[in-house]
Amino acid sequence: MRVVLAAGATETALIDGISAAGAAPELMAHTPAADAEILAYGEPTAAPVVPVSPTGCPTPAAVTRAVREAVGFDLSVVDAGLAKPTAAPTVDLEAEPGADVRDPVAVPGAERIFERAREYGRDLPDDELLLGETIPGGTTTALGALTALGESVGVSSSLPENPLERKRRVVERGLAESGLEAGDCEDAPLRAIRAVGDPVQAAVAGIAAGVLEGGTRVVLAGGTQMVAVAALLRHAGIDSPLEVATTSFVADEQGEALPEACSRLECELTVTDPGFEGRDHVSMARYCAGEAKEGVAMGGALSLVPDGGMGAVRDRFEGVCRRLGVDGERDDRAGGPSDRAADPPEGSRGS
Amino acid sequence: MRVVLAAGATETALIDGISAAGAAPELMAHTPAADAEILAYGEPTAAPVVPVSPTGCPTPAAVTRAVREAVGFDLSVVDAGLAKPTAAPTVDLEAEPGADVRDPVAVPGAERIFERAREYGRDLPDDELLLGETIPGGTTTALGALTALGESVGVSSSLPENPLERKRRVVERGLAESGLEAGDCEDAPLRAIRAVGDPVQAAVAGIAAGVLEGGTRVVLAGGTQMVAVAALLRHAGIDSPLEVATTSFVADEQGEALPEACSRLECELTVTDPGFEGRDHVSMARYCAGEAKEGVAMGGALSLVPDGGMGAVRDRFEGVCRRLGVDGERDDRAGGPSDRAADPPEGSRGS
Repeated sequence: MRVVLAAGATETALIDGISAAGAAPELMAHTPAADAEILAYGEPTAAPVVPVSPTGCPTPAAVTRAVREAVGFDLSVVDAGLAKPTAAPTVDLEAEPGADVRDPVAVPGAERIFERAREYGRDLPDDELLLGETIPGGTTTALGALTALGESVGVSSSLPENPLERKRRVVERGLAESGLEAGDCEDAPLRAIRAVGDPVQAAVAGIAAGVLEGGTRVVLAGGTQMVAVAALLRHAGIDSPLEVATTSFVADEQGEALPEACSRLECELTVTDPGFEGRDHVSMARYCAGEAKEGVAMGGALSLVPDGGMGAVRDRFEGVCRRLGVDGERDDRAGGPSDRAADPPEGSRGS
Repeated sequence: MRVVLAAGATETALIDGISAAGAAPELMAHTPAADAEILAYGEPTAAPVVPVSPTGCPTPAAVTRAVREAVGFDLSVVDAGLAKPTAAPTVDLEAEPGADVRDPVAVPGAERIFERAREYGRDLPDDELLLGETIPGGTTTALGALTALGESVGVSSSLPENPLERKRRVVERGLAESGLEAGDCEDAPLRAIRAVGDPVQAAVAGIAAGVLEGGTRVVLAGGTQMVAVAALLRHAGIDSPLEVATTSFVADEQGEALPEACSRLECELTVTDPGFEGRDHVSMARYCAGEAKEGVAMGGALSLVPDGGMGAVRDRFEGVCRRLGVDGERDDRAGGPSDRAADPPEGSRGS
């Protein structure tokens, strides 16, 4: 199994109150670079930030890395417009960071990125691929793409209180500045990305399109950002089987909207619960409180964990958190090295 | 365990009769890109060449990939001056391909590449690293560096008949064009690389230097090219423990010269025999006949195989060869799925 992570940037993330993916705007630009390093090496190496929120919630990359350590998977990071250098090995699509969606053009190179990504995907010999993303501001650009396509789907947030109204206003302004109205890009998904999307969407959609040409199974690993990619693929006329695999945190936030959107887009939906509520660990508690929720292929990675394996993932997650400087502050240390017996039911549920 | 592969190019490879790493000079430039893809994906993906000699000898990357499939290791490919694009994820050191060693300057950016590589190595959190290379023409540049350092060590060849005299003449001319005599760079290893080396040497030596600063164990995975890197490190005043791990094919060719060189450079030497002579497979026969011998971290990767595991590596190697279009033409198909019982003794020997 290979996880392909598309990592990039959009200036949309700098809009006040949009993203939690980084403590301060000037540091947030390093988050995708750090996420890639965490997946590749187990911790940030060259990136000058450790993506942990002030409350102790680490980047979803920490969960995906925990799964990698527990279960094992191949990794390819694709540079889909990184704003800062990373020491992680990356596949070069010659993508540039995206502009603010409120600019007339958000992704000037959308078509070129899509085509390069499609070639890359077409050449991959793997039998099964899981595609993830890391791009601060990505749920706003997801809303942008969905709105331009005429899909009335809500989007998730890395913040406990989703600033959805703010995102809607940003997207409305973005469409207006691009001379578009909602639904105007119904048959032109690359135009939607170009106007109000981000370069990671072009990369993920392109890789998926290329991989699907060869009949290989593709899992879109993520929440509403991956629903947006699924919509982009459907609006491009691609009718191959598609799957979205996300976390219970996104599913709980989205309620019926998520399975309804997936059903309308003819996507299988897999939701996986990492069972974080059973442990008294600050980072797991933050996830349970609705922070971060998803990203960096977290939900898809969790779907790879076999029955009975989630305790080992939580153990590994605690180890990754320690490396990121979060010691967990557990109250149940007297309870012994494993709290598996006390853990609630866990695992994936399809829809 | 992580294998870091430095991949690059030098115009030295284009000198007639120097390298077997590619069927034709114009295609050889793609070999490192294809090697990286073979390690990352199991076969070339975007690279337009399949590095197999006309006699059916595949690139050593096929052996290293076989070990990866059988034993498992993390992989980071470092772009140390690739001449052609690769679809493998790479760490960017902003290195350019090297010039011909007969030019006055062979590696203008030697110092910069070394420093970037050192930073990369310093940041790596791994406990143990294996460093390999893929650069056609690399044994000639190894001879260049060794000669400039004043180390009278012979070098190996990917050809069954080592064109050592030709390499010596090329290096002599290179030194003369650089205004140097043998031994002139005794205390200036980066000057040796700049004058008559290649960018991969700068990258591997830099990564090793950075990793050694943190006290991490480094294995230089290769033959005489890695002896040259060991010499560069020693001449830079680095006296940390060093190990060279190579194949029995290089060791057999080099005789006493290899352990003597390692002893003088205070390097541990590990030699591993993949047991290819026991199978009637065309590619294994070509290795036994002295083709290719080493490269792409082959010897180091083989040293990772636990006792009794080499049969599985040979099985995997046959699978990789099939993907590269070499069907093996085995005569013993009637003998059943495994020829392990007939295999000779195998494994690593230290010195």
